[in-house]
Amino acid sequence: MALKLYYDLMSQPSRSLYILLKYANCNFESKLLALRKGEHFGEEFTAINRLQKVPVIDHNGFVLTESVAIIKYLSRENLIPDSIYPKASKQAARVEEFLEWHHAGLRLHCAMFFRVKFLIPSIVGQPEEPKNIDGYLRRMEAALKEFDTKWLGRGNNFITGNTVTVADLFAACEVEQPKMAGYNPCEKFENINVWLKKVRDHFNPYYDEAHEVLNKIGKNKFKMASKV
Amino acid sequence: MALKLYYDLMSQPSRSLYILLKYANCNFESKLLALRKGEHFGEEFTAINRLQKVPVIDHNGFVLTESVAIIKYLSRENLIPDSIYPKASKQAARVEEFLEWHHAGLRLHCAMFFRVKFLIPSIVGQPEEPKNIDGYLRRMEAALKEFDTKWLGRGNNFITGNTVTVADLFAACEVEQPKMAGYNPCEKFENINVWLKKVRDHFNPYYDEAHEVLNKIGKNKFKMASKV
Repeated sequence: MALKLYYDLMSQPSRSLYILLKYANCNFESKLLALRKGEHFGEEFTAINRLQKVPVIDHNGFVLTESVAIIKYLSRENLIPDSIYPKASKQAARVEEFLEWHHAGLRLHCAMFFRVKFLIPSIVGQPEEPKNIDGYLRRMEAALKEFDTKWLGRGNNFITGNTVTVADLFAACEVEQPKMAGYNPCEKFENINVWLKKVRDHFNPYYDEAHEVLNKIGKNKFKMASKV
Repeated sequence: MALKLYYDLMSQPSRSLYILLKYANCNFESKLLALRKGEHFGEEFTAINRLQKVPVIDHNGFVLTESVAIIKYLSRENLIPDSIYPKASKQAARVEEFLEWHHAGLRLHCAMFFRVKFLIPSIVGQPEEPKNIDGYLRRMEAALKEFDTKWLGRGNNFITGNTVTVADLFAACEVEQPKMAGYNPCEKFENINVWLKKVRDHFNPYYDEAHEVLNKIGKNKFKMASKV
């Protein structure tokens, strides 16, 4: 098949690309990796991506890493619709402005909280001490607040205007991640709450499909928390 | 004038854009901001960029933030040459792959070390305790090693091949930053050392012009260190 996607649905940008390709009705060969088993460190995958990260695509032998670079490439190759990644220069610039901001502005902080609160404790088998989590929580909430007020909260339905774009999909998959660590951004940030429902609706049924395992883990977390 | 650039040469992506526009012989109106005086938090600049960060461009009234989004836009608008930002899909993808990686892969760690070792101590008037710097140094050196071996060190002169691109310019301006904190990546990483000279040569005299203040601060740091 022409297009292969290497991914794990526990990875935020993997979910974004998976949902995007399904939504765009773009056929792809599914190359599922289990990060929890360290399959990305294996010899076979390292030969594909020396950086040992997902997602990765292989398009007729052209191997490309980095999710944002991948969607730009898929857009140029006309594999995803202009409606969600506009080709007009200024409209594209608005989408890209958010995607570039999101690396250190949103993704970093949600991912670090998830890592310290959920991932590392899951691996070592004991919870992180609350005092070691405080700083990560504070930085994540500052990032969520900036996203909630300076990107959303400007009177539009979506990040760059009243049309949903890949910027919304990428942001949504990042905002979902801390749910696995028992933190739901929708409970504290109302613009995020309203917006996330619209993004989910737009990309369903693929959105829910990609978040199935995440949602199960998130629900268990809440059950455990309510037992304490 | 058609194009305005808001920048401070103490900021890595500001230097990248400044050098790029000078190199491309692209006329722009210089809008210098002094971050050290907090001018980016002022009312006037906040009205231009609600995120209160440089660099920013204003192109005939179209205001755009985020340096990587800005160069993509400048490329589409034919304001920078194809030779350093190729338009061919696969070649562009290779440049973008690096630029996306560099946010959390290189920039974050060099910038955090600079911040903790130099910037905050300069503001509060006393040096950070070494034990608080160790983690930042370790993470920066891991990032520099990955850059040195997995992006450089592949038998090419530059990051994406034997032609210099904006990827090299952006990386170079990030790698220069810790010099102000008394750490020169060229001393420990030989591929970076060889490559950085080539990038500097290619973009001179603009490269040295943009790094003049940084180099002065870096030299003072080394003098101070040798006196201890």
